[in-house]
Parts: sequence; structure tokens; C-alpha cells
Amino acid sequence: MPTFRITIAYDGGPFVGWQRQAEGASIQGLIEDALADLEGGDVAVTGAGRTDAGVHAFAQVANFTLTRDIAADVIVRSLNAKLPVEIRVRSADLVPPAFHARFDATAKSYRYRLWNAEVLNPFERAYVWHVTTPLDVAVMTDAARLLEGRHDFAAFQAVGGTPGPTDRLITQSTLSASGDGLVTYDVTGDGFLRHMVRAIVGTLVEVGRGRQRPEWILDVIASRDRAQAGRTAPANGLFLVRVDYGDVQFGAHVP
Amino acid sequence: MPTFRITIAYDGGPFVGWQRQAEGASIQGLIEDALADLEGGDVAVTGAGRTDAGVHAFAQVANFTLTRDIAADVIVRSLNAKLPVEIRVRSADLVPPAFHARFDATAKSYRYRLWNAEVLNPFERAYVWHVTTPLDVAVMTDAARLLEGRHDFAAFQAVGGTPGPTDRLITQSTLSASGDGLVTYDVTGDGFLRHMVRAIVGTLVEVGRGRQRPEWILDVIASRDRAQAGRTAPANGLFLVRVDYGDVQFGAHVP
Repeated sequence: MPTFRITIAYDGGPFVGWQRQAEGASIQGLIEDALADLEGGDVAVTGAGRTDAGVHAFAQVANFTLTRDIAADVIVRSLNAKLPVEIRVRSADLVPPAFHARFDATAKSYRYRLWNAEVLNPFERAYVWHVTTPLDVAVMTDAARLLEGRHDFAAFQAVGGTPGPTDRLITQSTLSASGDGLVTYDVTGDGFLRHMVRAIVGTLVEVGRGRQRPEWILDVIASRDRAQAGRTAPANGLFLVRVDYGDVQFGAHVP
Repeated sequence: MPTFRITIAYDGGPFVGWQRQAEGASIQGLIEDALADLEGGDVAVTGAGRTDAGVHAFAQVANFTLTRDIAADVIVRSLNAKLPVEIRVRSADLVPPAFHARFDATAKSYRYRLWNAEVLNPFERAYVWHVTTPLDVAVMTDAARLLEGRHDFAAFQAVGGTPGPTDRLITQSTLSASGDGLVTYDVTGDGFLRHMVRAIVGTLVEVGRGRQRPEWILDVIASRDRAQAGRTAPANGLFLVRVDYGDVQFGAHVP
């Protein structure tokens, strides 16, 4: 009964999200279907993060258990042969049976990409939020830094979102601009509420547009009120880029 | 009667190529249609290079003449409002009436992108040729350098291709590998025969696979026989990245 951990890159555009739904193609569902062909029976796949519809991953991590021994490289090739080209299994390795991609994750990193120029780069159209109003990246960076540390992020949670505690530890929250229009927000934390990264980005954009001062983000945190934060940024700018398990990291830079 | 020069980026995937055809959407045709709305009559658009179906451009250059004065920034905004998002006009400027995007071009630069790893990066799937056999980039680089200079490139021309002389001056022909799978071929010359860059890339891949030595490329040139060169590499890895007009360059790095 070997248990495997796989890392997966996917373009979330065509899918209803990671999680299997009653209708529509999900990444989890497609991987489970491909594994069922290989196994000759149902296989349950657990992902590190339940990315929403349209959200991309450069390194999602998942685990599953099969009933017979199959070499890890055969897993990679068999799954990629069956999956649509928008989903690629990057690697597979044997792990102890107790491994759980979600519960064992110690940190996750997301990247959000904005295109801040009048004219959109057509090759980026599916992978950025196009914001034409000029953004002040320096003040957005100041605001982003104020999110680092342990905070109650209830104000950045989808309405009717994740049940349970809403405090999370953010260890990195930084912005950079490439000069040609691309603005990149990178955030690492021990966990994220539903829509949290996209609500943070919508809030940072309010600051970048000059509508609010950087310190306002602390008022938003203190309010615990979703209505105080900015809009939820579009899904197609968001990438799950890394999942950490103690000292072991799975991930890489997005292209 | 102002004459404009525009630079255009496009994802060639959905189009039949630059040039207007009897059937199918062409980049030239879509720009001409958008300009006809603006002008209230037919406008002919001349491009620097006639990119084939599926070939991309980061900076195609084109010219056209209107009957009334319109500000350059209005041209950019009006065209982008009418064109599909896969085609973006990056800039427009007034030029002397005699300006001709093709005849006045002194050099063109193309980039060809290969993905050389077993697993394709899903975000690159529309913008690379996926070659899974390991390529020796060092020997490909040696072969690529041998193309620099003035040569008769008849062996690298589409069958039934461009009429007229087949000698061209290549001023740069280099490869680089990013380490994660991306292999980039950059070539600059005073002009290119139809399918020339793609035939060169197919030929370099024969060398990279170890089937031929780098010096073989000189035999291919000398043969003037298309059958001696490698296959025509797929269109979707090719980008027109820069057009030069004397000291003036229009272009930039592809993303």
C-alpha cells in the first residue's frame, strides 16, 4: 500500500478549482479519475490547498495511497498521459503512510500578479489582474509589510468563509515591480482563510491608488469586517507557488 | 493625411497569420477592420514581417495613412478597444508619409523558445516547442554560431517559398538555457526567408540530439536543398521580437 506525494502545476483557467464539485472539471477530480484508471478502483487525493476556480498552481502538493507498488516515475508519466495539458504532475515520491498534504504543511506561499500599465501584455492576459490606474508600489509595499506577524484576518475572509479561528501568521508579505508593468505580490504564511490573498491584494490596490494611507490596513485588520477591506482581486492573478513541510519545500518561481 | 507607425504585440495562436486571407481572422485584417471603423473607409496596413499562422509577435511594426488628424494616443486606445485581447497595440507615432514598415526595416530579430524537459510547464504550453529528448545546448550553440555571416539560406526555405535571392546576412545567432527547461534561440538578420527561423531551429535540434555534428550545418547550407536540413519547428515557439530602422529599434524581450 504505497503512499505517494506528488507536486502539480496547473493553469486554473479552465477548471472549477482544486476540489471535486458536482458539476465541472476540477483538478482533484481529474487526478482522481486518472489514478482510478491506473489503480483499477477509486483513489482519494488530498491536496495541500483548495485553490478556487481560476486560481493557478506552480507547485500544489497532494497525497494518495495505491494498493500495488508502482515506480514513482511511472506515476508521473501515467498521470501526465491521461491529464489535460493544463495540469502537469511535476514529480512523485514515496512518503510514509501517515503523510497528509494539508495537515502536515507548515507554510504556504502564494504569488499574486498585477499588470499595471495602460496596455496589457497579451501573453500575460490569463495570468494577471490588469489595473490601468497608476499604482504607487512603494506605499503598497509599506502597507504589505504591516501584514507580517500574527493577526486576526477576519476582515480578509470570504463572506461565509472558513469556519474556526481566523488568526494566521504571515512571515513574508512583499511587493516588487519589474518596470514593464508587472507588479508581483509574494506572501508566505502558516495558513490562509478563503479568498484571503485576493482580499489583501484588493486592499493593497486601494492604497496603491492613493485612496488610503498604508496605515489604514491596520484599521482594516482591527475592524474584523470584510466590508472595510478592498475588493476581492480576480482569481486569474493568483498562484500557489510553494508548500513547506518543516525543512522540506516544494515549489519554484512562477515563469 | 497623417501616416502612423504602430508597434503591435500578439499571441498568434488563434489567427491565420499576419496577412489577410480569404478565410479566417488575420492580424492585418483585424487591424484594418478596426481602422476602417475609425476612418469611416478602407485603410491599408503594411507590416514589417508576414508572420505565419500561429507565430507570435512581441513587437511587429506596421504603417498606415488616415485622411484626418487623430492624436497618436487616441489611435492606441481606439484600436485596443476594438481588437481582441490577443492583439495589443503598444504604441503609435507619426512618421513621414514615405515610411514603409517592410522596405525601410534594416534588421529583424526573432526568438524561438523550446521546452526541453520531460514535463512541460503548463503556463508555457502555447509558447514553446516541447522537446523531451535531452538537448546538448553547447553543441547547438556551436552550430548556431556557424550561421552568422552572409550565406545562401535556400536549404532553410519553405518549399515553394520566397521568390528572389536567397542570401541573407545573419548578425546574431545564439542560444541560451535557463536551467528549468527553457531553451531560447535568438537570431537577428537583415531579412528572413519563409519558414527560415523554424527550419534553422529544426536543424539545430538535430545537432542537439546528437544525430549530427555542429559542422554539418555548413554542409546543409552548401547543399541549398531543403531536404538536407531538419524539420520545420512548430509555429507556436516563434516570436518576432524586434524590427530595426537604422538606429531606431522597436522591440523588447519576450516575457
